Amino acid sequence: MIRGTTKLIAHLGYPTSTFKAPMIYNPWFAHRGIDAVVVPMGCKAEDYAVFLPLLFRLSNIHGALVTMPHKVATVALADRVSVTARIAGAANALRLGADGLLEADMFDGEGFVAGVLGKGQKLADRAALVVGCGGVGSAIAASLAKAGVARLALFDPNAAMAEGLADRLKAAYPALAVVTGSNDPAGFALVVNASPLGMNPDDPLPMDVERIDPSTFVGEVVMKSEMTPFLAAAAARGCRYQVGTDMLFEQIPAYLEFFGFGRPSVAELREQAAISY
Amino acid sequence: MIRGTTKLIAHLGYPTSTFKAPMIYNPWFAHRGIDAVVVPMGCKAEDYAVFLPLLFRLSNIHGALVTMPHKVATVALADRVSVTARIAGAANALRLGADGLLEADMFDGEGFVAGVLGKGQKLADRAALVVGCGGVGSAIAASLAKAGVARLALFDPNAAMAEGLADRLKAAYPALAVVTGSNDPAGFALVVNASPLGMNPDDPLPMDVERIDPSTFVGEVVMKSEMTPFLAAAAARGCRYQVGTDMLFEQIPAYLEFFGFGRPSVAELREQAAISY
Repeated sequence: MIRGTTKLIAHLGYPTSTFKAPMIYNPWFAHRGIDAVVVPMGCKAEDYAVFLPLLFRLSNIHGALVTMPHKVATVALADRVSVTARIAGAANALRLGADGLLEADMFDGEGFVAGVLGKGQKLADRAALVVGCGGVGSAIAASLAKAGVARLALFDPNAAMAEGLADRLKAAYPALAVVTGSNDPAGFALVVNASPLGMNPDDPLPMDVERIDPSTFVGEVVMKSEMTPFLAAAAARGCRYQVGTDMLFEQIPAYLEFFGFGRPSVAELREQAAISY
Repeated sequence: MIRGTTKLIAHLGYPTSTFKAPMIYNPWFAHRGIDAVVVPMGCKAEDYAVFLPLLFRLSNIHGALVTMPHKVATVALADRVSVTARIAGAANALRLGADGLLEADMFDGEGFVAGVLGKGQKLADRAALVVGCGGVGSAIAASLAKAGVARLALFDPNAAMAEGLADRLKAAYPALAVVTGSNDPAGFALVVNASPLGMNPDDPLPMDVERIDPSTFVGEVVMKSEMTPFLAAAAARGCRYQVGTDMLFEQIPAYLEFFGFGRPSVAELREQAAISY
């Protein structure tokens, strides 16, 4: 129930028609008696830099969920940017700090990592391979570093992307071993497809699945289908795995904590949601 | 249930804490299966002129309810202004026209008139006295003219306010007889207190109640209490009357029609509302 006192959380992106967050957050707010609401706002890229500061001048604004096409622009517009968002070069969450400054964070990688840990895969002191070093790959790499992996291998067909990400990671995590230049998945505790390969039916696999050890945990970011060809091939080898949408849904508790509403379990959120996921 | 497709109606004003509209509109939208939501946005006066055009560039914006302190500024910011809003010098509703232009209208007076007509008082070809020619008095005078009164008497302690309103009315309604300079209520079918007198306990009455005929219908805009001293005195003379909040609630069907959602009865709206009124 929206009232005059309700805290407003803008869901910023364009187009909005496929947004699911309101149907997950709002029923949970109602269930917990939290006077807040997530409201889609279809802001176009060319308006964002002017609209965002004015939105955060509203007296009842509490925060924002940020999605395409604004994640990269958000880093430049915030007053404070988390280490994770800085490494990712992108942010998907905004809130006002106690001093009125605009704080940005990035939870795509946090959701990915929370899902992997929740499925029983340990990450601390392990080695991980991330294939694809764009926005989502960078976010996942940043969160893997935060989660304490000892060694990160990064691969991107555009070598400069992988090297740039490696530099940002090493600056923030000097003890982390980072290598670039190979997508060979042999010998890693975790391998991740963070590239767009799998979006189109005739895409090649992102790495040589035959070289993935059955004990390796395999993660995917493509959400085109639940079982992408890459995941299907890894599962056929006996690997445990995480599907693309888990990254989205597993980050919601971190978002809620960022907004100051506590950190519910994914199960509690699913139970209240107006959509099944 | 807010979705990615939900049409956004901003409730613009500051402060927002006393806003009631979301608790009236949103349950009715849910009841009728209309995919729209009213969301309070606490926009401060100094931000309004910049925020408003950006708000109306959102892809899912449908309209706005406008309240204090933005009603006067809205007239200057809209591309098209209704005759009623032009006379009132204020607007409380905004929508995008089919051509993308921003259209403003004013429903305070419409609500006042709808309430009076709904209580069985005829207005066409009758005479009315409006005491107080600020924003709300101007809006009521404009809507009385639109409703077809034959003669309007206007009074304000600031004579220039009454004369300015008279000029705007005569320009839009050349056949209307408009007089200014007296608050004597004798001989009118309708008399209205549209002044702030009654807000404070030691205010004088806005007119000489002893000269109101018992057959006269008496309207009030002060909402400090349901039965203001003015209404109580008129009721004691046997007059029928309308309380201040009726103006607010009786205008909601006109608002909904303006937004393209049909024109429900006040009774249907009251039945669905999450507050009693």
